[in-house]
Amino acid sequence: MRFGPSPGDASRFVSAWSDVAGVGRDHLRGGYSRHAFDDPEMQLRQWFAEQAQRRGLEVENDRNGNVWAWWGAPAPGAVVTGSHLDSVPGGGAFDGPLGVVSALLAVDELRVRGITPARPLALACFLDEEGGRFGLPCLGSRLLTGAADADHVRRLHDADGMSLADAARRVGFDPSTMGPDPARLATIGAFVELHIEQGRLLRAVDPAAVVGVASEIVAHGRWRLTITGQGNHAGTTAPADRADPMIPAAAAVLAARRALSGFDGAVATVGRIIPVPGGTNVIASAVSLWLDVRHADATVTAAVVDAIVADVRAEAAAEGCTVMVQRESMSDRVTFDPGLGLEISGRLGVPVIPTAAGHDAGVFAAHVPTAMLFVRNPSGVSHAPDEHADAADCVTGVQALADVLETLVGDINPAARHVGAGDE
Amino acid sequence: MRFGPSPGDASRFVSAWSDVAGVGRDHLRGGYSRHAFDDPEMQLRQWFAEQAQRRGLEVENDRNGNVWAWWGAPAPGAVVTGSHLDSVPGGGAFDGPLGVVSALLAVDELRVRGITPARPLALACFLDEEGGRFGLPCLGSRLLTGAADADHVRRLHDADGMSLADAARRVGFDPSTMGPDPARLATIGAFVELHIEQGRLLRAVDPAAVVGVASEIVAHGRWRLTITGQGNHAGTTAPADRADPMIPAAAAVLAARRALSGFDGAVATVGRIIPVPGGTNVIASAVSLWLDVRHADATVTAAVVDAIVADVRAEAAAEGCTVMVQRESMSDRVTFDPGLGLEISGRLGVPVIPTAAGHDAGVFAAHVPTAMLFVRNPSGVSHAPDEHADAADCVTGVQALADVLETLVGDINPAARHVGAGDE
Repeated sequence: MRFGPSPGDASRFVSAWSDVAGVGRDHLRGGYSRHAFDDPEMQLRQWFAEQAQRRGLEVENDRNGNVWAWWGAPAPGAVVTGSHLDSVPGGGAFDGPLGVVSALLAVDELRVRGITPARPLALACFLDEEGGRFGLPCLGSRLLTGAADADHVRRLHDADGMSLADAARRVGFDPSTMGPDPARLATIGAFVELHIEQGRLLRAVDPAAVVGVASEIVAHGRWRLTITGQGNHAGTTAPADRADPMIPAAAAVLAARRALSGFDGAVATVGRIIPVPGGTNVIASAVSLWLDVRHADATVTAAVVDAIVADVRAEAAAEGCTVMVQRESMSDRVTFDPGLGLEISGRLGVPVIPTAAGHDAGVFAAHVPTAMLFVRNPSGVSHAPDEHADAADCVTGVQALADVLETLVGDINPAARHVGAGDE
Repeated sequence: MRFGPSPGDASRFVSAWSDVAGVGRDHLRGGYSRHAFDDPEMQLRQWFAEQAQRRGLEVENDRNGNVWAWWGAPAPGAVVTGSHLDSVPGGGAFDGPLGVVSALLAVDELRVRGITPARPLALACFLDEEGGRFGLPCLGSRLLTGAADADHVRRLHDADGMSLADAARRVGFDPSTMGPDPARLATIGAFVELHIEQGRLLRAVDPAAVVGVASEIVAHGRWRLTITGQGNHAGTTAPADRADPMIPAAAAVLAARRALSGFDGAVATVGRIIPVPGGTNVIASAVSLWLDVRHADATVTAAVVDAIVADVRAEAAAEGCTVMVQRESMSDRVTFDPGLGLEISGRLGVPVIPTAAGHDAGVFAAHVPTAMLFVRNPSGVSHAPDEHADAADCVTGVQALADVLETLVGDINPAARHVGAGDE
């Protein structure tokens, strides 16, 4: 790669990063819990708006809970970069905020380079990318593009039973205006999202690579299984009288694990399970569990789910329990704009890799030329407190993002610009 | 049996029952959630105090969060009856409150019968019998008798991280005074607890029996297993990189089920499981699960736990996870006072049955002559919304309790009493 961190860049990154690093720490689970419309996420929105305004950008909320900050008046052909401020429960620091911090710092970098964008540049933070509060990931981008039905989304509720509509109203958003925003979508000429890598594929492909470019997101979805039995006393209920939904639930966990070897390239995980009522001395009356399944091919993804559900239904029947399956979300395989990806990969001299993680960029890819940059993650751990990227690598990420944005927005006055990395 | 409900009794019962039936309904889980020191439990304490005062009883809080109501000044040889006001999460209406309501109505019944107790009679409601909030069941009776260490209890915390000491202070109780209360224990001449039956043993022994007397409580305990792995992204983590604690957790659930057939007469249940962080798209970093194990013989109970833990450790080792086991409580087999039990059984003409459910009576049995009455439960379901006893059966229970109390307290002026059921 032709770019590398300078000490000044590193200290700018560390300083900007320290603004977000203290917000939303989860002292029970470890890591961070920042969820759509909760206090930490609102605090980060406020921080983003202040940072954008300090840079002279025009901040606005759209109709779908997403925040935008404009360098130049919104107009067709705008280049958009950004990510999300929410986390999974007990997640890492980088997933989401790294893309937002990097977007702000890329603006600084473009100014240092003396660029005056020929096209409008927007920074954006999207609502509930993780689906950590309301279950459906990429809420903001799905609403905006019409990939999610606004009526359905307004009725989603969190673990405390609060609807998304009520949660939005509580913090001053009007849920009634949610829905497709074709006018806004039509202004987007290209979307670029920078993200920490999740996994260790980049290292496997090129041990020296600090940044990578995404080729595709594999097909992935979430299914909620609700297994219903008969709640009862854990001590006094005879074996023959038990209809314990925990038994088929345990079978579901193990069936998901078996799918890893049964279907080449597939992953299937149960990371969330809630027995009702959840008492130590109580046979559960029902268990909800969520199945996360991914494979490059959507047909295989569906086959994995079918195989797991068949196992669970058989166990449930034997136990006298019933099973209800709801698909909460399904994203088909997404191929990012190949021309844009190859152009970026060639310009930066970095590898192209697929990912099994969903992103707002995956939603936008169906509508506008879209690309993703990944910053390497030495351990590969993500969605967990141990998630980490080195500051020097993050600075390299900022510079790579600035390079990409510079190319995409153009410069109305190239003669006036400083000598920068792009001139080598 | 020589007693049966009269229409007047039934309407008195239904009226008293309606006072408690609306308090603490859990609209998320179904049934009732009333936990130590929470709003519904405090509301029921208030209701109990008012009901006792209306009957001319002297109400006092002891040092351990238990409420007492005295008919006659506290003195050695006192007869105590009562139960608890808390429930398991999403529990039934009867487990606990039936014994309290029945105690109040038994006082009414004794007055109708013209009894003036020769010994003091106390009604009591004990703190956190279910351990639904702080994990350790029979908290109030264990503290009072010294079976639980007050320092340990003060430091117990609920799912939100609030300590028992803080929870007590919030509602006006002084946790610093908690601890053994030998003076109070010394005043108790006998303890009788009426409870809804949990299970269907009474019906199996005598299909016509409305009431039964307890012979023993089998050995039972709670173990918390904490399985630690590596939190990670559910989509991007390769099969070989996974150390998912849900896998050994599922093995624990199935090992507990296998114990039901592997150890004759044993029951083992996992009704509570909490993956951390509990995100749909997250491989858990840790899973806590609680194992409830019971068998008449404490050695077998321990062997069941050992067998399950050995299975979990093997699965955990294969997965690259570790396991920590904490015994949260263990109650050895309790045999109720056989003389008292036989006397009651003979007097009422009802069967004697063991139970696998823990009770405050089991704690008191080590210190004072103790007996339990069970009111039949047609479905056997308990610790669940479907828990039910017919009002007519509950009235029969009140009369049985009044009969037992009448015998135990004596009458200082037998000549003055009305002709009642006891004279037949």
